[in-house]
Amino acid sequence: MNLADRLMDAIDRKGTPALVGLDPRYESLPAELRPDDHPSNAVAAKAIGIFCRRIIDVVAPLVPAVKPNIAFFEAFGWEGCRAFTEVASYAKEQGLIVVADVKRGDIGSTAAAYAKSLFQAMDVDAVTLSPWLGSDSLAPFFEYAGEGRGFFLLVKTSNPSSADIQDRELAGGTVFGHVAGLVNDWGADHVGDRGFSSVGAVVGATFPEQAAMLRRAMPKTPFLLPGYGAQGGKADSLRNAFGEGGYGAIVNSSRGIIFAYQKDQGEGGWEDAVHRATLAMRADLAGAVPDAGWNQG
Amino acid sequence: MNLADRLMDAIDRKGTPALVGLDPRYESLPAELRPDDHPSNAVAAKAIGIFCRRIIDVVAPLVPAVKPNIAFFEAFGWEGCRAFTEVASYAKEQGLIVVADVKRGDIGSTAAAYAKSLFQAMDVDAVTLSPWLGSDSLAPFFEYAGEGRGFFLLVKTSNPSSADIQDRELAGGTVFGHVAGLVNDWGADHVGDRGFSSVGAVVGATFPEQAAMLRRAMPKTPFLLPGYGAQGGKADSLRNAFGEGGYGAIVNSSRGIIFAYQKDQGEGGWEDAVHRATLAMRADLAGAVPDAGWNQG
Repeated sequence: MNLADRLMDAIDRKGTPALVGLDPRYESLPAELRPDDHPSNAVAAKAIGIFCRRIIDVVAPLVPAVKPNIAFFEAFGWEGCRAFTEVASYAKEQGLIVVADVKRGDIGSTAAAYAKSLFQAMDVDAVTLSPWLGSDSLAPFFEYAGEGRGFFLLVKTSNPSSADIQDRELAGGTVFGHVAGLVNDWGADHVGDRGFSSVGAVVGATFPEQAAMLRRAMPKTPFLLPGYGAQGGKADSLRNAFGEGGYGAIVNSSRGIIFAYQKDQGEGGWEDAVHRATLAMRADLAGAVPDAGWNQG
Repeated sequence: MNLADRLMDAIDRKGTPALVGLDPRYESLPAELRPDDHPSNAVAAKAIGIFCRRIIDVVAPLVPAVKPNIAFFEAFGWEGCRAFTEVASYAKEQGLIVVADVKRGDIGSTAAAYAKSLFQAMDVDAVTLSPWLGSDSLAPFFEYAGEGRGFFLLVKTSNPSSADIQDRELAGGTVFGHVAGLVNDWGADHVGDRGFSSVGAVVGATFPEQAAMLRRAMPKTPFLLPGYGAQGGKADSLRNAFGEGGYGAIVNSSRGIIFAYQKDQGEGGWEDAVHRATLAMRADLAGAVPDAGWNQG
């Protein structure tokens, strides 16, 4: 089944396009999960694995997907890689779609090795990829698009210095606008029954005007919107990124949800803070796209 | 000690800028190291680890550095990540500089986690990075540049579809030319005693005219030249990429050396073929840059 179809069905089932980013900075873990300020890789990897599984327990009924960022796992060496694989597997068991945030990008034969790593050894549903090396760096990933997997290309990222290269002016527009055209073409053969492609785009929630332009340039491309919450993106400004029927975008929040306990001193433990933050994000998005198909429950 | 200085000293000591790429495709391993056609991740990871250590034994006296590509390790999950770490550590014990080919690129806090992964957990000397997300994606790596580490940015890659984005025309030149200007500026504060920076550039050996232009645009930037050998790059065409005194470039060959046994049916085992291929590459490069400082032995 086409990844975009799976994603939209999950959005309908959960009633929200919210995506929880798993960026388990060890030093930000709740104290009860942090046995040591200077842990070995093995100790730290175990702790972030437990933390992520407990986040998943809280958010699995509330959101369609999670986005573990592999960098925070690789920070603890191969033990961290093992924890990543276990977390991805646990999230799938709980019925979540797993978008591995890995931002890989390499040439043909190496790209094939990355695709094998991610879609076989780690067995995730979708990945983020850099477009910098062009189409032949994506070819091995297309082979998996027919098997219900997908990927999101970094078209316009959420960070300030995305302007360094992505915003440069070509004769007919910006570099990221050119990349958007490529992504639209690359995804054309992979559109599912619900009108979106399994080739998606990462579009920073921090640049709302650009999101509207990119929605027009890539009408059938699902967007992954990072930068909501901690990076300053507001739900209202995301409206432009949604496509027909309020579909075609998933909105990520990482720190704002998983480390909600740092700002929310309300009742219960840190998992209650995660629960409240997820409900708040759901309500925020529902308010921003009131007529969306997933928002009629 | 500045990474570029360390690299140049090693080039002088070994008398060549040749770099051996460790891309251990399991299916290409010599039969004696390949116990099974459908190995578990653990079995495959062990086999590629042994293969790489034996390559290192052969090439350590002949070249200054190796470039393990992490994708071929990650293809076998966390067991592959563990093998990568062990191979990197073994290469350093044998006196080689380790350039980890990882092509990472992510925003600030995630970039910091990658830098920790690579320079602490895996403890490599240098890494390859994508410039796509701009300067703030590099900030955490600069912190390590003062500690003798360095990185090579993907300015113009060796694959055909590098043209998709990198070759696009801006008002005053190409996108990769613009990136070259950024890399030159980013590296300016990290120039060592021997005149080169610890911020390097990946420049495909498959595009010699562009290499000459890029050498002018980045006079103090060390180049990592992939694409020599198996991808069709010729030593003669690399001459333009070298800077003052024949320094400032290292030339990578992966398949052409590590799987030399597939084409070389000469005397001895597969390690003898690796040895002959490395000597042939050294001679080829020496012929291409006859007046280089490292070539006067």
